Amino acid sequence: MTRTNSAIDHLACPKCGAVYPHHLPAQLFACGSPLLVRYDLSKAGESLDKSRLQDRATDLWRYKELLPVEWEENIVTLGEGFTPLLPLTRAGAAVGVDALYLKDEGVIPTGTFKARGAAVGVSKAKELGVRTLAMPTNGNAGAAWAVYGARAGIDVKIVMPEDAPVITRNECAAAGAGLYLVRGLISDCGKIVARSVAGHGWYDASTLKEPYRIEGKKTMGFEIAEQFAWVLPDVVLYPTGGGVGLIGIFKGLTELQALGWIGGKLPRLVAVQAEGCAPIVRAFEAGKPASEFWENAQTVAFGINVPKALGDFLVLEAIRATGGCAAAVGDAEILAALSELARSEGVFLCPEGAALYAAVKKLRGQGWIAPQDRVVMLNTGAGIKYPDTLHFDAPYLGLNDTL
Amino acid sequence: MTRTNSAIDHLACPKCGAVYPHHLPAQLFACGSPLLVRYDLSKAGESLDKSRLQDRATDLWRYKELLPVEWEENIVTLGEGFTPLLPLTRAGAAVGVDALYLKDEGVIPTGTFKARGAAVGVSKAKELGVRTLAMPTNGNAGAAWAVYGARAGIDVKIVMPEDAPVITRNECAAAGAGLYLVRGLISDCGKIVARSVAGHGWYDASTLKEPYRIEGKKTMGFEIAEQFAWVLPDVVLYPTGGGVGLIGIFKGLTELQALGWIGGKLPRLVAVQAEGCAPIVRAFEAGKPASEFWENAQTVAFGINVPKALGDFLVLEAIRATGGCAAAVGDAEILAALSELARSEGVFLCPEGAALYAAVKKLRGQGWIAPQDRVVMLNTGAGIKYPDTLHFDAPYLGLNDTL
Repeated sequence: MTRTNSAIDHLACPKCGAVYPHHLPAQLFACGSPLLVRYDLSKAGESLDKSRLQDRATDLWRYKELLPVEWEENIVTLGEGFTPLLPLTRAGAAVGVDALYLKDEGVIPTGTFKARGAAVGVSKAKELGVRTLAMPTNGNAGAAWAVYGARAGIDVKIVMPEDAPVITRNECAAAGAGLYLVRGLISDCGKIVARSVAGHGWYDASTLKEPYRIEGKKTMGFEIAEQFAWVLPDVVLYPTGGGVGLIGIFKGLTELQALGWIGGKLPRLVAVQAEGCAPIVRAFEAGKPASEFWENAQTVAFGINVPKALGDFLVLEAIRATGGCAAAVGDAEILAALSELARSEGVFLCPEGAALYAAVKKLRGQGWIAPQDRVVMLNTGAGIKYPDTLHFDAPYLGLNDTL
Repeated sequence: MTRTNSAIDHLACPKCGAVYPHHLPAQLFACGSPLLVRYDLSKAGESLDKSRLQDRATDLWRYKELLPVEWEENIVTLGEGFTPLLPLTRAGAAVGVDALYLKDEGVIPTGTFKARGAAVGVSKAKELGVRTLAMPTNGNAGAAWAVYGARAGIDVKIVMPEDAPVITRNECAAAGAGLYLVRGLISDCGKIVARSVAGHGWYDASTLKEPYRIEGKKTMGFEIAEQFAWVLPDVVLYPTGGGVGLIGIFKGLTELQALGWIGGKLPRLVAVQAEGCAPIVRAFEAGKPASEFWENAQTVAFGINVPKALGDFLVLEAIRATGGCAAAVGDAEILAALSELARSEGVFLCPEGAALYAAVKKLRGQGWIAPQDRVVMLNTGAGIKYPDTLHFDAPYLGLNDTL
């Protein structure tokens, strides 16, 4: 067995401040809040050197000291992370932003950012001796946990709305997970999972009900910092359903600040939602610390069709702490943005990612984004997972035709 | 303008030996053979140092000296290359191979290895001043050239069999390419393209009809060498339709040999085809230098449903020169291999990639692969592009059910 040099120290409750040991499987804390991982950052700094990162693996495990897995043998990887950061020059010019970038999480195993959370979450579950885990999902998270679970030898149960992308069913089933469909929303699936884990003693891998998924996702923040050579951009937009990606980026950047690797000013974080399901936006605008359940949630961006997120208070904290905001865009704007980006830049995004470009337009129009701001859109998944989002008719040619 | 330090020197015909300048758009040579790019390797060696590669971009452009693009400004990139190399311990043990690896080209823009050829091919087309290009495709190559073409600002015309994966139509159309469907095979599409480019003076980007696509694909060979720390594996299997990937790997490894970066012994290259379309296998077994058109070609692995490849003679040369072979597997074996790999390793491959595992089983059974051989399977694309390849039924739960 080989140590990773992980500087994990303990788990902490961000609501009541309680401390919990990290050697035992943990779920929500007794007060009902998610637990977060805390590190001994001075220990991490002993072996982690930002000027030597280029000698490390070109995946998220390059930041091992700041990840929770303590033994190399427990790392379950499919090569996830260190995704491309692409300048979008034409698309930026079209909306009056000088420096617009795309961080493309389509270029990762399973085709979505969910691979990060699954890689770290499953690895730590393996380290903690978990045999069976269960979770509700809007599709992509379940697919990711199913394939990483298969690679780890952990039994996985997935409960998914029937409206989730069909390909994600195949990923779960092919990987040998137990797959169950529900005529309802992810919140309905979550209730079924909560009852089931209680009955069987399974590990509940629902969003934020275990503390380690967010640790995988925070590496998006590490990578943004490293890819910008430690001089952070001004604005980062994130499509927000459960919100773990945004919370993770904030957590990651805060850790880099504490290490002294980046300055005091963080990017303004923007939570982007769909007008058909915008509980965080409503809470932000009302100045509230948490959101309310959004009735009759519906949007073409299915991954952010989350009517009430367990971590809503952490999302709201992160956007307020950074001077960010929350913005909602309509389905028609999302579909238009998807096509515009494909034509102008050759990037084919998931609808959730495309929503960010619609939000950039809106926020630039309102003056909230300035022309000289350096703006990053975090595309959470590959457009190729969504064959039904756009519809095109193509002409047929006969064998003897010529264009 | 900034020079890339490309060591491109000229184009050469591998059939008749003729030399052709690289400053002009080139198609097939007058003798009917593809042209290949030749480099001044001593010039390349001046700035390319294998011990300093880790300081370079983590994509295929890290090997710029050995790529044909001469000016940085012409590079059209979506962050392609340096894909994961994964050990498949359980899957190897299941078939009696101690060291089985997967090089996973699913983790790349557009989800298939076609991105490599398109990135380099489109970049060089831009450098050469191409305004419009056209090509036939079984789907994934067309999708890749369409999105890279959009990023380059080049007009792209794609002709595709109606049986090609539906998602690839969306990628082409969303990127603004002219998309045309044909009730026939890629060979039928190729004839339409040939007539059309002749009429309009377009650039013909068909497989091997322009010399630069292969330059992108050869970087798979560079990466295998680098990821194995310059001590090459014993066997590399490749799903073979047009065969450019295999030819490219051979070309890349030969260039590394000439640079003195690797020893004299190359991996045995294996061309894997489907029993329903195996022209290279038939030619290999008959000891012939080229293949014959395969009538009534059909297989679930649509990407290798190529009845006659223009570069067949180069594929046969590469496998013979390395002591490799050609092997055909049935559709049922391909589908079984796809499921087995997903369950045992958490890797969800395209059917073409899964065919390789079926071939490993067969060749191990015949003793052609030895237990101690280090074996690499080159998965050419992500399983998520193929929602219709596998079929699963999942049970429904009611809102009040418990697992």
